[in-house]
Amino acid sequence: MSQISALQKARAAYAPKLPAALQNGAAVVVTEGAATQSVADCDKISALFPKTYGSPVLTFAAGKESNLPAINVGVILSGGQAPGGHNVIAGLFDGIKSLNADSRLFGFLKGPDGLVKDEVMELKSDFIDSYRNTGGFDMIGSGRTKLETEEQFQLAEKHCKALNISALVIIGGDDSNTNACVLAEYFKAHDSGIQVIGCPKTIDGDLKNEWIEASFGFDTACRVYSELIGNLCRDANSAKKYWHFVKLMGRSASHIALECALQTHPNAAIVSEEVAAKKQTLEEIVDKLASIVANRGNAGLNFGIILVPEGLVEFIPNIKTLIAELNDILAANAASVESLDALGKANFAAGKLSEASAKTFNALPEGIRKQLCNDRDPHGNVQVSLIETEKMLAEMVGNRLKAMKSEGSYKGKFATQTHFFGYEGRCAAPSNYDADYCYSLGFNAAALIGAGRTGYMSSVRNTTKKASEWISGGIPITMMMNIEHRHGVDKPVIRKALVELDGAPFKFFASVREDWAIKTDYVYPGPIQYFGPSEVCDLITKTLELEKK
Amino acid sequence: MSQISALQKARAAYAPKLPAALQNGAAVVVTEGAATQSVADCDKISALFPKTYGSPVLTFAAGKESNLPAINVGVILSGGQAPGGHNVIAGLFDGIKSLNADSRLFGFLKGPDGLVKDEVMELKSDFIDSYRNTGGFDMIGSGRTKLETEEQFQLAEKHCKALNISALVIIGGDDSNTNACVLAEYFKAHDSGIQVIGCPKTIDGDLKNEWIEASFGFDTACRVYSELIGNLCRDANSAKKYWHFVKLMGRSASHIALECALQTHPNAAIVSEEVAAKKQTLEEIVDKLASIVANRGNAGLNFGIILVPEGLVEFIPNIKTLIAELNDILAANAASVESLDALGKANFAAGKLSEASAKTFNALPEGIRKQLCNDRDPHGNVQVSLIETEKMLAEMVGNRLKAMKSEGSYKGKFATQTHFFGYEGRCAAPSNYDADYCYSLGFNAAALIGAGRTGYMSSVRNTTKKASEWISGGIPITMMMNIEHRHGVDKPVIRKALVELDGAPFKFFASVREDWAIKTDYVYPGPIQYFGPSEVCDLITKTLELEKK
Repeated sequence: MSQISALQKARAAYAPKLPAALQNGAAVVVTEGAATQSVADCDKISALFPKTYGSPVLTFAAGKESNLPAINVGVILSGGQAPGGHNVIAGLFDGIKSLNADSRLFGFLKGPDGLVKDEVMELKSDFIDSYRNTGGFDMIGSGRTKLETEEQFQLAEKHCKALNISALVIIGGDDSNTNACVLAEYFKAHDSGIQVIGCPKTIDGDLKNEWIEASFGFDTACRVYSELIGNLCRDANSAKKYWHFVKLMGRSASHIALECALQTHPNAAIVSEEVAAKKQTLEEIVDKLASIVANRGNAGLNFGIILVPEGLVEFIPNIKTLIAELNDILAANAASVESLDALGKANFAAGKLSEASAKTFNALPEGIRKQLCNDRDPHGNVQVSLIETEKMLAEMVGNRLKAMKSEGSYKGKFATQTHFFGYEGRCAAPSNYDADYCYSLGFNAAALIGAGRTGYMSSVRNTTKKASEWISGGIPITMMMNIEHRHGVDKPVIRKALVELDGAPFKFFASVREDWAIKTDYVYPGPIQYFGPSEVCDLITKTLELEKK
Repeated sequence: MSQISALQKARAAYAPKLPAALQNGAAVVVTEGAATQSVADCDKISALFPKTYGSPVLTFAAGKESNLPAINVGVILSGGQAPGGHNVIAGLFDGIKSLNADSRLFGFLKGPDGLVKDEVMELKSDFIDSYRNTGGFDMIGSGRTKLETEEQFQLAEKHCKALNISALVIIGGDDSNTNACVLAEYFKAHDSGIQVIGCPKTIDGDLKNEWIEASFGFDTACRVYSELIGNLCRDANSAKKYWHFVKLMGRSASHIALECALQTHPNAAIVSEEVAAKKQTLEEIVDKLASIVANRGNAGLNFGIILVPEGLVEFIPNIKTLIAELNDILAANAASVESLDALGKANFAAGKLSEASAKTFNALPEGIRKQLCNDRDPHGNVQVSLIETEKMLAEMVGNRLKAMKSEGSYKGKFATQTHFFGYEGRCAAPSNYDADYCYSLGFNAAALIGAGRTGYMSSVRNTTKKASEWISGGIPITMMMNIEHRHGVDKPVIRKALVELDGAPFKFFASVREDWAIKTDYVYPGPIQYFGPSEVCDLITKTLELEKK
């Protein structure tokens, strides 16, 4: 038996809090709302989901003892890790046991692949107990296989039936929940008698809407990053000699960068959605950062913190155009560039770019030019996650400041340190918020199963209040969908929640950032606390706090 | 007034624990041991420190109420940040107030420079209170100026006398404490009536010996790094697709890497002192790591964690030789290489290296060859801290595995992520251990001042026991000194504590590492806890635990 840490041992005893509706068990009293519509493209979505479209929103109230028969349930972790996944499974386990003590839970291994390949294990009480309130997805593993094809659906049905599984819970992000809904529709259309329930997971925070307040893991991951950013702020303010450029995970949306900014008050934080909305060029971003550094430097403050979202370059219109041209040029000339090294490829491509893109390209540091031409995914596209945006910005800001110095508009010193925080937070043990929220989501999924529903996402909301006041229920997944054009085809997908520039979190940030830029107004959140006074343990994100104000 | 975090607010109320000897105040009962000798080179050290050499070790017991007159004391933070520095100052403040309520504390700003340039502020009660139990050195700032010259000493005396300061407390690492002792000797030789007391600070953990159990900050910094490493371990074990190469701060000694390994059980951790003792080549290190990756890969485990100490390359004999040759070649040919870019310099230097060094050089990845030739400090030496050792090893291990794959001895997949943890931990809020230890060191420094001593280091030991059993007293700094040849001259210095290969921490590590290499035996320490059960809050380092077993 492996050693476990003192904290893990003590934390295992934590009993996550449940909404009042679930405190008597998962056999809840169900209130149905009116029939629902998708957020857009109702006709197309309804045509694609004839069996599951339009189901009502469900709200639960506490029920009595369950007289339901025992059921077998399968569970799948899908996609990137997020703190609290194990608690969803523990909540689901406790929930189906509350329906009938003979109910059984099966975990499909390594993500959706386990369902397709029939790799599965029964999750029993002792095993579940050893993972309560822990981080990671190592209990059953996860994977990125997408459940999309008829063949996969047939295998899924076969493997569920072999184990007498009558309900599947898929824990994943927007795409995984979309696929959960497609699978629910398939099972219903084929009268297979298998329900499908989704749970909203992603540290990126981009799976949320009126009904889903937060995707789990966002709170914990942002707290880990904010702990580190706060420590860097304190270090910067102590040593007074470095500008720290911190890249944060979050490719499609900048919720993480924004939340961390709200928690720590850095001197600058870039929000990709603003860059896209204002059609900012890379030069404009660099100019803005350089002016922040220069203003502080001219006031004798040669240090600071700048937060950069991972996906930034894809939101900068002129870089987006450049990347598209590079992808085309290198693909069209694959034979000619094959033998060239990265610099050779970059020089080759530079000669074939449009005038505007050539200008953008040549202004980039050599290292980035090489990265844009060298690292390609299997489809021949640049791998944006490998671009060291934080180093690129540090170098370009440095160059801009040199020019400003020679012009006489800057008289400070500029030395940098760069960081990327991502993997450090995805598997942290869940905060009380995520531990409670995840356990509730899982337990609530059991309630949806008990209520015989399919194509629903487990929904627990009103989470800015204490847990007993949380509202639990189910939201039909089709309700969150629209049609998007992806990889050349129209697809029904759950609409991704980007940072809204007229939303309260961004508006608050925009109202104070000029102050944070010039002042040294850092906040040091420190590490997640699991014990002690409620005001340090039972926190909610600043994002949620502002959204629900 | 700036916002402070919920945790900082709650933590401000923490009352650090004191040894029994200090619980009645700093007017202690002093027991003197016999006269002491330096650890080596006694004649030379004693000749250099005629006034302060040979003082006895002091042990304190609880005293009665103080009847000492009020004193003015100065305090200086020297060198890199370490968690708990503010608590040393708070303990010193409370200590001198316990000697006489009219005593006053002055903080010299931005390190030793403040003493030389007379930049100073009085530290009053409210100001001190706002920094209790916080991380960072931002209260008065720090700096790396060395107090070494006669001129500096004269200015120090002048500026102390102007404020009627009769004792100086210097909080720093081995070099700063050496200089504190030189200053104590100077003041005594010049009858200036100013005492000098040192406090042992450094996250690197390399200032320790029989009398100084630990340098403060090591515990907290290692816990922050271990939290992150544990999270990466959990992520690796969940995603099962990456090898994480983690570089850790600690240039001169590998205590941090070793302690983090003991806390988290990675698949490999390099200890620089072992590399040097066994005269390992870079190729041997790469081969060993590649064989660990291959053994796991062949068992289907294509993931893992490898810890790398920051200073590694300086401990590898053939790299050390290479760096020395490069420094000479580039210095001797400054004019010829001036206009060349990094690759040009590397190619130029390659042609002039000895055969052995050329072989070593050419085996390095291009990026590292360029770093070794490009980034130079003002003395023309390579800046080792800028070398991305973690990326170098990841790339070289990858190349070795490709060769093994083609030989048929490896059949796994190898994808990497690299990290550097350093700045993230230096300014964390101190753990209970560091909060108590630092406060005690500062309070104890006041006791040494009250006892009229100079040239002493504040010593608090027996810290594996509860605080009331801690032994407080003073150690003559000369006792820890020997003569070392540095930058061409013989100097009296405090002997640096490297990882001892026959010490208990390394021996334990060596006895289990083969197991950790092949198994997935990770421990997830989680974040520092400040509240809750003692077994999660009141921890000591594994290093200390094993040393004192």
